[in-house]
Amino acid sequence: MISGKTTLIAHLGYPTEAFKAPMIYNPWFEKQGIDAVVVPMGVKPDDYAVFLKSLFRLSNIRGALVTMPHKITTLDLVDDATPTARIAGACNAILLRPDGSLLGDQFDGAGFVRGVERKGRRLAGTRVLVSGCGGVGSAIAASLAAAGVAELALFDTRDASAQALAGRLAEHYPQLVIHTGSNDPAGYDVVVNATPVGMNDDDPLPFDVARIAPSTFVGEVVMKSEYTPLLRAALEKGCQVQVGTDMLFEMIPAYLEFFGFGTATPDELRAVSQIKY
Amino acid sequence: MISGKTTLIAHLGYPTEAFKAPMIYNPWFEKQGIDAVVVPMGVKPDDYAVFLKSLFRLSNIRGALVTMPHKITTLDLVDDATPTARIAGACNAILLRPDGSLLGDQFDGAGFVRGVERKGRRLAGTRVLVSGCGGVGSAIAASLAAAGVAELALFDTRDASAQALAGRLAEHYPQLVIHTGSNDPAGYDVVVNATPVGMNDDDPLPFDVARIAPSTFVGEVVMKSEYTPLLRAALEKGCQVQVGTDMLFEMIPAYLEFFGFGTATPDELRAVSQIKY
Repeated sequence: MISGKTTLIAHLGYPTEAFKAPMIYNPWFEKQGIDAVVVPMGVKPDDYAVFLKSLFRLSNIRGALVTMPHKITTLDLVDDATPTARIAGACNAILLRPDGSLLGDQFDGAGFVRGVERKGRRLAGTRVLVSGCGGVGSAIAASLAAAGVAELALFDTRDASAQALAGRLAEHYPQLVIHTGSNDPAGYDVVVNATPVGMNDDDPLPFDVARIAPSTFVGEVVMKSEYTPLLRAALEKGCQVQVGTDMLFEMIPAYLEFFGFGTATPDELRAVSQIKY
Repeated sequence: MISGKTTLIAHLGYPTEAFKAPMIYNPWFEKQGIDAVVVPMGVKPDDYAVFLKSLFRLSNIRGALVTMPHKITTLDLVDDATPTARIAGACNAILLRPDGSLLGDQFDGAGFVRGVERKGRRLAGTRVLVSGCGGVGSAIAASLAAAGVAELALFDTRDASAQALAGRLAEHYPQLVIHTGSNDPAGYDVVVNATPVGMNDDDPLPFDVARIAPSTFVGEVVMKSEYTPLLRAALEKGCQVQVGTDMLFEMIPAYLEFFGFGTATPDELRAVSQIKY
């Protein structure tokens, strides 16, 4: 029940129609008796900088979830950002600190990594291929590096994106072996589709599945259906997989802690979620 | 259930802790299956002009409820305002029109008038005393004039406020007999306390109750308790009365129509309200 004492968490993006977070966070807050609400706010790119500054002057706001198309812009608009956000080149979370300053962080990658490790796959020392070096792919790469992978291959159809990410990673992780320029999945312990390929029914597969070994773990960020064509093909080969929404549900506990609302397990969050597939 | 398709109605004021509207509108929206939500936003006075402009650039907002301390300021910030709002010198409602412009209106007075008339008291041709010529008192006076009262006495401890209101009323209602300078309730058909007197336990009564006739209708805007000391004294004399929350529940149907959400009766709204006294 929203009242004048309720703490606001803005959900910033545009357009808003496909937002999923309110249907997970708000039932969770209600179940836990946390007096907070996630409110979708459709902010157009040209309005974002002014709106963000003005929004965080409100007396009853604590933070924001940030989604497309504002994740990258946010990095330049916050007062401070975590190393993960800086490497990712994007923020998906903003916290209003007691002194009025804004801290940006990034939990996409943490969600991916926590999901893989919860499935029993240790990432330290492994070789990982990330296809797609936009906001989500960069965030996953940053968190994979933080988790101690030995080798990271980065692929993007815009090679400059992959190169730029490689440069940011190399600054912070000088020991990390980084490749760019190929999305051949042969020989990797983990391969991740962090591109939008799979959103449309007639999309090709994002990898040459014939060259993925059954021992390879295949991760997906596309949430259009639970098992995308990539994941179905990987399962047929006997691969262990991670669906797109796992990343979503695994990152929410990190957000909850960031905002000071305690924590939760992905299963607890799935149980209250009002998202239907 | 809030989703990315939900229409936002901002509730603008500062501080927000005592806001009541979310606990009436939101249960009503839920009961009626209206996909909208009233969201309290605590805006400090210095931030209001910039925030308001930025807020109404959002893609999923339709309007705002405006409360203290922004009702008067709003009149200068909207693109257009109704005659009632102009006489009241204040807006408590903003509608975002399809062309992006903002229309300000004012329903405090309409709520008061509708409540009195619903209790069987016809206002046309009567003599009314309004004590308190701030935002609420001015709004009540504007709506009383629109309802056709013959004579209006306006009192405020800051006499300039009463004089200014009298001037605005005289412009629009040249036939109306207007007095200022006294809060003696003797001889009026209706007397209204539109001051904050009664908010504190040790407040004096806002009128000399000994001089109120049993046939006089006594209205109150203070909502601290249902029956304030003024109303209890009036009831003892046999007067018909209107409690502060009647004005609130009577004005909501006007707001709902203004925002395009249909309408409701005060009893239907009270039945779903989560406000506890």
